[in-house]
Amino acid sequence: MPGDPPAQCLFCRIIRKEEPAEILYETPGVIALLDIHPIHFGHTLIIPRTHSTDLLSVPGDELSDIMNTTQLVARALVDALGLKGFNIFSNNGRIAGQSVFHFHMHITPRHADDNIRFVLHLKEYPLGELRQTAESIRRSIAAFE
Amino acid sequence: MPGDPPAQCLFCRIIRKEEPAEILYETPGVIALLDIHPIHFGHTLIIPRTHSTDLLSVPGDELSDIMNTTQLVARALVDALGLKGFNIFSNNGRIAGQSVFHFHMHITPRHADDNIRFVLHLKEYPLGELRQTAESIRRSIAAFE
Repeated sequence: MPGDPPAQCLFCRIIRKEEPAEILYETPGVIALLDIHPIHFGHTLIIPRTHSTDLLSVPGDELSDIMNTTQLVARALVDALGLKGFNIFSNNGRIAGQSVFHFHMHITPRHADDNIRFVLHLKEYPLGELRQTAESIRRSIAAFE
Repeated sequence: MPGDPPAQCLFCRIIRKEEPAEILYETPGVIALLDIHPIHFGHTLIIPRTHSTDLLSVPGDELSDIMNTTQLVARALVDALGLKGFNIFSNNGRIAGQSVFHFHMHITPRHADDNIRFVLHLKEYPLGELRQTAESIRRSIAAFE
């Protein structure tokens, strides 16, 4: 999965204060800022300070820091904006919709009848293929664990 | 955000082995299993063993466990299925698309030109509203921190 080196990366530039951003929260490892093209007002990005292209390359301790901050900011969004729901998501890889190749988690406020939806077609596993798929994935997990 | 008590909760029943599931991986705190109505084959759910309704109620150490497992399984999916991209997401609240009220993270494989997309309309903040929104959220963060 490709990406700009840290010198050109938009999020690295924001972290170095070379680009303006509306920062909500900072820790030694993570910043949270408002997306300026929000799905809904309050749409927030949680970004590790260290440049990692995607989920697969984020160190474990940073991942914990990212998720603790995601939880804290989600709680604050629910409170500040009176939300009844929100999504968190991360796109990894260009074909998955990733546009900045520096890992980040989105938090998107949701509102009743906001007409936001995923367009998709749920599939059914043909007989035997559920188990075959699982076996193939279990082998890879065992190799990486 | 409502939900079944653990006695009736689908995911609690799976964890207690009262319901069948194709389990990919287990830790003392988390299980990973194949969604039987996948967006693409390999669509996986990462589920904490303890019943928490949504992200806001998951204890911090479980959240780290969930995300470490999400990362491990995503790495295995990329390997086993030859993926060039994937999404991770969690819906929190009925209006956000949550259907089982026991927190879980989705990992969805993606394929080129798979025609899966979010239907949404990006917004623009009116002048001054970006900062006002940020100030309101920052106040809530400070109250919860």
